This record gives sequence, structure tokens and C-alpha cells, in this order.
Amino acid sequence: MQFTIQQIADALGAECQGDGGLTIVRAAEPGDAGPTDLAMAMSPKYAEALSKGEARAAVLWEGADWQAMGLRAAIFVKRPRMAMAGITAMLDRGQGIEPGIHPSAVIDPTAEIGPDVAIGPLTVVGARARIGSGSVIGAHCVVGMDAILGEQALLREMVSIGARAQIGDRFIAQPGARIGGDGFSFVTPEVSGAERARETLGDQGDAKAQSWLRIHSLGAVEIGDDVEVGANCTVDNGTIRSTRIGDGTKLDNLVHVGHNTRVGRDCLLCGQTGVSGSVEIGNNVVLGGQTGVVDNIFIGDGVISGGGTKILSNVPAGRVIMGYPGIKMETHTDVYKAQRRLPRMARDVEALKKAVFKQTPSD
Amino acid sequence: MQFTIQQIADALGAECQGDGGLTIVRAAEPGDAGPTDLAMAMSPKYAEALSKGEARAAVLWEGADWQAMGLRAAIFVKRPRMAMAGITAMLDRGQGIEPGIHPSAVIDPTAEIGPDVAIGPLTVVGARARIGSGSVIGAHCVVGMDAILGEQALLREMVSIGARAQIGDRFIAQPGARIGGDGFSFVTPEVSGAERARETLGDQGDAKAQSWLRIHSLGAVEIGDDVEVGANCTVDNGTIRSTRIGDGTKLDNLVHVGHNTRVGRDCLLCGQTGVSGSVEIGNNVVLGGQTGVVDNIFIGDGVISGGGTKILSNVPAGRVIMGYPGIKMETHTDVYKAQRRLPRMARDVEALKKAVFKQTPSD
Amino acid sequence: MQFTIQQIADALGAECQGDGGLTIVRAAEPGDAGPTDLAMAMSPKYAEALSKGEARAAVLWEGADWQAMGLRAAIFVKRPRMAMAGITAMLDRGQGIEPGIHPSAVIDPTAEIGPDVAIGPLTVVGARARIGSGSVIGAHCVVGMDAILGEQALLREMVSIGARAQIGDRFIAQPGARIGGDGFSFVTPEVSGAERARETLGDQGDAKAQSWLRIHSLGAVEIGDDVEVGANCTVDNGTIRSTRIGDGTKLDNLVHVGHNTRVGRDCLLCGQTGVSGSVEIGNNVVLGGQTGVVDNIFIGDGVISGGGTKILSNVPAGRVIMGYPGIKMETHTDVYKAQRRLPRMARDVEALKKAVFKQTPSD
Repeated sequence: MQFTIQQIADALGAECQGDGGLTIVRAAEPGDAGPTDLAMAMSPKYAEALSKGEARAAVLWEGADWQAMGLRAAIFVKRPRMAMAGITAMLDRGQGIEPGIHPSAVIDPTAEIGPDVAIGPLTVVGARARIGSGSVIGAHCVVGMDAILGEQALLREMVSIGARAQIGDRFIAQPGARIGGDGFSFVTPEVSGAERARETLGDQGDAKAQSWLRIHSLGAVEIGDDVEVGANCTVDNGTIRSTRIGDGTKLDNLVHVGHNTRVGRDCLLCGQTGVSGSVEIGNNVVLGGQTGVVDNIFIGDGVISGGGTKILSNVPAGRVIMGYPGIKMETHTDVYKAQRRLPRMARDVEALKKAVFKQTPSD
Repeated sequence: MQFTIQQIADALGAECQGDGGLTIVRAAEPGDAGPTDLAMAMSPKYAEALSKGEARAAVLWEGADWQAMGLRAAIFVKRPRMAMAGITAMLDRGQGIEPGIHPSAVIDPTAEIGPDVAIGPLTVVGARARIGSGSVIGAHCVVGMDAILGEQALLREMVSIGARAQIGDRFIAQPGARIGGDGFSFVTPEVSGAERARETLGDQGDAKAQSWLRIHSLGAVEIGDDVEVGANCTVDNGTIRSTRIGDGTKLDNLVHVGHNTRVGRDCLLCGQTGVSGSVEIGNNVVLGGQTGVVDNIFIGDGVISGGGTKILSNVPAGRVIMGYPGIKMETHTDVYKAQRRLPRMARDVEALKKAVFKQTPSD
Repeated sequence: MQFTIQQIADALGAECQGDGGLTIVRAAEPGDAGPTDLAMAMSPKYAEALSKGEARAAVLWEGADWQAMGLRAAIFVKRPRMAMAGITAMLDRGQGIEPGIHPSAVIDPTAEIGPDVAIGPLTVVGARARIGSGSVIGAHCVVGMDAILGEQALLREMVSIGARAQIGDRFIAQPGARIGGDGFSFVTPEVSGAERARETLGDQGDAKAQSWLRIHSLGAVEIGDDVEVGANCTVDNGTIRSTRIGDGTKLDNLVHVGHNTRVGRDCLLCGQTGVSGSVEIGNNVVLGGQTGVVDNIFIGDGVISGGGTKILSNVPAGRVIMGYPGIKMETHTDVYKAQRRLPRMARDVEALKKAVFKQTPSD
């Protein structure tokens, strides 16, 4: 896999200067770049390290003086991270899954495998499952009975997809992602202490020892187009209807999405975020790492939560929140600053009490 | 799989009215229900949507006017979630694991497989492992050497069970659950900064750089009857004795239980909860999602923690707690309300200081 | 596997007394110990239970009166946890992976497998991958194309290692660990609400709905010597350069390390800790369970964080921190104590306001 500077610039819709025929085989950080590497030096801070490496070509910010940097060619970009998307897509060497179906794979004879599908060693595809054209399925995956996977899916190794899941086109799943485990749903014969504590906000009444009965998941998981799920993520089946993830939404590693929850389109759920069951999440929502969301609430379109936020109640559209419990970020910052001054304020109040209540009477 | 309304009502011990011979193949939400679906409409709120669907039969609350809803049959239930347990158990279509042992499975000749056991493709069963009668083991599982699995276990795909684990009857494990990884236990030759910081609550002294030596896990995991563990959970081996999970306890997805910890019976550990090593958890404890528990403490019977609680010290039986650190929920609510008023209170204190200390002298 | 008391004492460099020829097959807790078990009774508290068991030999603290405890032999140790490291390493019975390459494993003909390597059933080794001598690879692992694994690695079952990963000697990976998933890195064509909210600390401006473009991971993962990663951990590939884990560092279960992040040597990252992308972590850092670290910050050498800490900004070397956001543990303790008194303080301030502002005028 190699490209000329001109080819890369064309693919990015970017301008290049210098020797457009120079060949590139890899991207590299400026200080590590060899003569066939394209140095990623999109801001002056990164360009400083160019002299430590041997790059002959670099991606630079607009207006950069590439010749003064000793380069033979340069590509100029406006929004560096956008350029990264294009360049890394071109230069991705992938995981090496061979075309065709590996002989060790166990494919049910009733499964429908589309054209140009690659299936790695020891992958299992269940009865009546359908895999769309151009999909690449890594080693050690399990695609359950009656599951549907759209076109051009990319499953890394050890991904599992439960029975009856319906997944759109261009789905990407990182290693160990779990689609379609059963939801966590249990009930006690009589009202439980936990149910009562929720109603009363803290009083569980007479906590009677009871055992839990299982509510099975009859629903499955429905996932839109252009969705990516991270390594060791879990997205659970719904109870009656399906759990849903909208088009364009991305889940980071170790994210949990509970049963019945619906996530809208173009959301980002960052690392280790956990969403309980029966939550409604709008579109273009960004939940920072380790965000937690209690069950049965809604989160409006465009909501952003800072890392570690615990969302315990409905959040209106457009709000930026943080904290435990999650509140408006500005309010959180004010509260936090006041907290840091609390020990001093406590001393002030003591002094005031002494001055006002003790000394006044003696006046 | 299909049932009559009468059969379902009988199984639930519930009353039905209308055409008890009506055939049902699926459960559905009221608005999505077709003519052979049983609409789940257990409260007036859900029943409104019946007119959008084509349900001829529904599960309703006691006293509901089923005929006015245009239904031909209805089942009446007292505690809707209890009815859900029964109905979903009847209508669960499962994952389609075929009876018998799949020819691609790798079963050690010394393993003892009980009668009526189903083992999916590419599952590995180690030396002297024992699998109880009626168990269903999905594709791509590993049951370690000398592990014991009771009767009627259900392992979804890609579950791993370490050597010497002992698991009771009716065990359910969701995809990717890990029973019997080694405990996280390391020691430095001399007292480490972390040990000192714990003792002094914050002062690690001269932090000397040391390497960590591994303490191996000689214990295993012991799990009672009727336990369920969620997708990508981890339950670690004990150091000398075994880590234990009591009868009837359920773990949600991505829950971590550390080495030596003992969890009592009929507990719920919700999504992404993490319990460190050597913790003693009583019976009927409910830990909300993303709860964290430090090592070497106890949590009494019937304790309930709200989502995101970090439990840093012993919790007496029956307490309902929340926060970081976890405190009584009532106290937490009071503290939280006061926090929200903190910025205003800070201004009040400044005004008071000005009034009392600055103006008084000038009087 | 069995040893004499003398052999164990010699291996620990410890003194023993009594019958050094006594044979030991297992370690046990004092109360559970049988006649061929070595009772772990390293403090007077544990020694009390010796009378409940049948131990004839025990590991005791220095100066303990072993004969009064009815023992026939005893080993005396200075630092009990250090002794545990030695004893448990000797008595570890392992997972029973057979020597040699299991016939069901799928090994690419271009892979280089060192001498004395054991590979379990159904493991896949990709093209040009190299596995160092003496390594033990469990069942159901995947070692990706061009990955390098050093000598004496121990991979438990279902571990996956992505293409091009470079891992040092004596690597240990618990079940389901994921090395080399793709980083979570996405970009919108125009500046997103999340980017703006970070800059302004809370104001996302006009939240325009945009879709996310993927930045591929061209880098891999580089791991030093003597590293251990826990069950269902995830360590992501870097974007251009590799994500790095230094020598001697240990990751607990369900820990997440994001793309480009560099973790130094001899660190401990406890259960469910999440480190975002592009973080620099020094040496000898200990992050307590469920710690979270935002992206693009540094954490100095020897930093210790308490359980549940959310680290939102740079942390200087040697600091012991706690809380959300993480601050110096002493400060956190002061703030926390003041918080608990907040509801009372609020009442005091109200009383003061009444006394100073309302009553004074009426005087």
C-alpha cells in the first residue's frame, strides 16, 4: 500500500506543493518520520520535531513555510483532525483477514452470506443469519441465529451478535463487543426494598428477604447504519421491543447499554459509560467517559456530559452537564469552587457565631 | 412455539376472560401488536396504544374493561412485573443451540458430560470438568480443568470458566462472562507508598520506586444455585480460599468481583459495579449501577446503594446509601441540597463578615 | 506437586523450625487446613483459627510460639504479603494447558513459534506473528498478524492481541483481555458542540447536528516486560505512534487504556479504571479502582489516587489524590468533613442573617 503526495492531497481535497510524485507508505509523527513517511505536523508545535526525523513530506497548516522546514513536498489542511480522518483511512493496513471463508469457520447451511464477504478462522454463523456483501468478519466471531448484518460490516475478532439482532450497513465492532446479551431484569414476588427506597428516596421499609425472578428478553437489538461499538462493549436485548442504537452513533470500549434503551443518531458514548434500561437518548448526544445514566429517563438532543457525570434525572436538549448528580456545567463549577472554600467558610461562620451570639449578649 | 390465552393464564395463575382458545405466538408492545401477539398493556398508560396496533388479546390490570378496548380476550394480573417473568419465560425463543455435542467442540476425554447436555460449536471442555444434566453451553465457551457446573446451566457464547470453579444448578452466564481469572494481588519488597498513604490517609512518605511481585491465586470461584452473571463480567479466583457468590445472586454486565470477596444470597449487582478484593457482602443487597466498593470492608444484609455510589467503609445492615463517599441517602440529599445553595451561602457569609467585623468596629 | 517445609522455607529465604521434611501439597486458611496443607497464619489474628483446622505446619510471624499451637513445623516470615508471593508461585496448579500445539489451533505457516511453546485448543496465530520461547497460550486466543510476543508469556483463554502489537517478556493476560482494538477517535467536519463546550467550560454554542468521521488507528500497542493485564481489559492502538505500557505495570480487570496513552513502569491500574487517549502517566503510579482520567493530561511519577477518583487535570509527581474532581487527599478530607456539616452550617447562616440583618435594624 503506497500513495503519492498528489494522490493523498486529491483524496483530502487539499492543496499540495513541491514534489507531488513523492511516494508515501506510512504516516508518522514528525520526530519519528523516515524518508517514505508522511509527517503529521499540523501545527507549529508539532512541526518543531521535524528536524529530529527524516521526513521529506509533511501535512502542515495553511500558510506554513514548508521549504524552510527542509521538506520536498507538503500538503496543507484547514481542520487537522478532518485531514487525519482521510489520511488514516487511506493508510490503514488492517488486521489481515483473508478474502473468502476460512475452512475452519462453522457456517450454518441456511445462513446467507453475501458476495465478497471474508470470514476468519473459527467463526460461527448461525441458522438463517444474513451477512451483507463486502463484510469482513474476523476470527472467533459468533453471529447468532436469524441475525442480520448489513453490507460492508467489519467485525474484529471475538465479537458476538445475539439471535435476531438487526444491524445496518458499515457496522464496525471492536474485539469482544457483545451485542444481544439478555437484559438485566428481575422481580420479587412482593414489592422489594429497592422499589420502596426509590419511591421514598431512601426508606426501604421492612426489608423482607426475597428471591429474584427473571424477566426474559424477548426483544433483540436494532442498530442503524454507520455505527461503531468498542472493545468489550455490551448492548443488551430489549424485553418486548428491541433496544435501539441510531445511525452514526459510536460506542467506546466497555460501554454498557441496557435493555429497551434507545440511543439516537450521531451520538458518542465514551469509554466505560453505562446507560441503564429504558432510557431515551436523543441525537448528537456526547457522554464523556464513565458517565452513568439511571433507568427510565430521557436525555435530549445535543446534550453533552463531562467525564464521570452521573445522570440521575431527565436532561433537556442542548444542556452541558457535569457532576454527581449531573447538573449544568456552570452551576457545577460554581458549586465546586465554593466547596473548595468550604473549610475556610466553616471557620468564618464559627467566628461569626461567636461574634454575634456570644459577644452580643455580653454587651 | 405457541400457546392459547388459557394456557398462559393458567401458567401465571391469573384469571382470563373472553376467548381462552385464542392462539398467541409472541408478546408485543400494545402499539406494535399484530393479531397473534399478546399485547403487554398492564397499566392504563400502555393500554392507550392498543388502538394503534392490531392486538386481539392483552395482559391488563385487574378490573380493566377489555371489551371496550376491542379485544377478544384478556388476562388480568396483579403485579405486572411478576406476570412479565412468567410470560417472557414461556415465550423465550432462545439462541438456537442444537441438542447434543457439536462435532467441532473439543471435549477432553476425562470430562463428564451429563445427560441431555447441548454443547455448541468450538466449545472447549477441559480435563475432568463436569457438566450437569440438561445444561446448554453456547458456542465458543471454555470450561476449565476440574471445573464443576451444575444441572441446567445456560452459558451463552464465549463464556469462560477457570480451572476448579464450582458452580451450582441453573447457572446463567451471558456472553463473554469470565469466571476465574486470577486475582489482582501484588506486593512490593518493602512497604509501598500506597500502603503508607492508606494508613495515613494521604501521606505516602518517601515514595521509593519498587517493582511489584505477583501473588498467585490458589483459590478458585464458588457459585451457588440460581446465579446469573452478565455479559463481560469478571469474577476472580481467591488467593487461598475461593471467592464466593451466594444462591440467587445476579450480576449485571461488566460487573467486577475481586478475589476472596464473598457475596451473599439474592443480591443484585447492577451494571459496571466493581467490588474489590476481600469484601464481605450480606444477603439481599442491591448495588446500583457503577457502584464501587473498596477492599476489606463489609456490607450488611439488605443494604441498597444508589447508582454511582462509592462505598469506602463498612455499611450496617438495612441502610440505603448514596454518594461518593456513600452515606445515608437522606443525609446525602440534605448535603446535596445545601451544596446547590453553596454559592449563595458564600455570598451571605461575605455580607455577614462585612456587616459584623467591618462595620461593627466603626459603630 | 508437593514440597517439604524445608524446600518452601529455602525458596522464601526464611527460617523454619520443627520437622523440615514434612510434605505440603497445598496452602490453606488456618481454619480449613488439612494435615498436608500449609496454614497461612501470618498474624495472631489468623493463628487463632488453627485449632479449628488440622494443620501440622504453618507460616507464622517472627517469634510466634509454634509449638504451643500444636504444630509439627513452622516457617517464619517478616513481610507476610511478600511470603505469599513466593508460596503461591510455588503451589500454583495452573490451568492445565498441555505442552505443544493443540491440533485444533490455526497457526499461519509464516508465524514463528519459539521452542517449548504450548498453544491451547482453537487458538489462532496470524501471519508473521512471533511467539517467544516458553510461552503458554490458552484456548481460544487470537494473536494478530505481525504481532510479537516475548518469552514466557502466559495468555489465559480468549485473549486477543491485535496486528502489529509488540509485547515484551513474561507477559500475563487474563481471560478476555483485548490488546489492540482501534482507538475511539472521531471528528466532525466543522467544530462540534463538544469541542466548543470544552473550550468554554460549558457553552457549546449553536449545537449543529453533524455526523462523525472516523480517524483510523495506524499505530499499535507496545508493552514492556513483566506486564500483566486483567480480564476483559482493553488497551487501544495509537493513532500514529503506538500506545505504550511500561515494564512491570499491572492492569486489573475491565481497565481501559485509550489510544496514544503512555503508562510508565511499575504502575498499578486497579479494577475498572479508565484512562482516556493521549495521557502521559509516569512511573510507580497507583490508580485506585474506578479511577477515571481525562484525555491529554499528565500524571507524574508516584501519584496515588483513591478509589473512584476522576482526574480532570494534570497531577504533579508524588501527590496522593481523591475525589471528583481529584484533589489532594488532605484537602478532600477537609472539604468532605465540611460538607457533612453543611446542612447545619446553612441553618447557622440563616440564624446569623436573621440576627444581623433583620434584628439589628429593629434594635
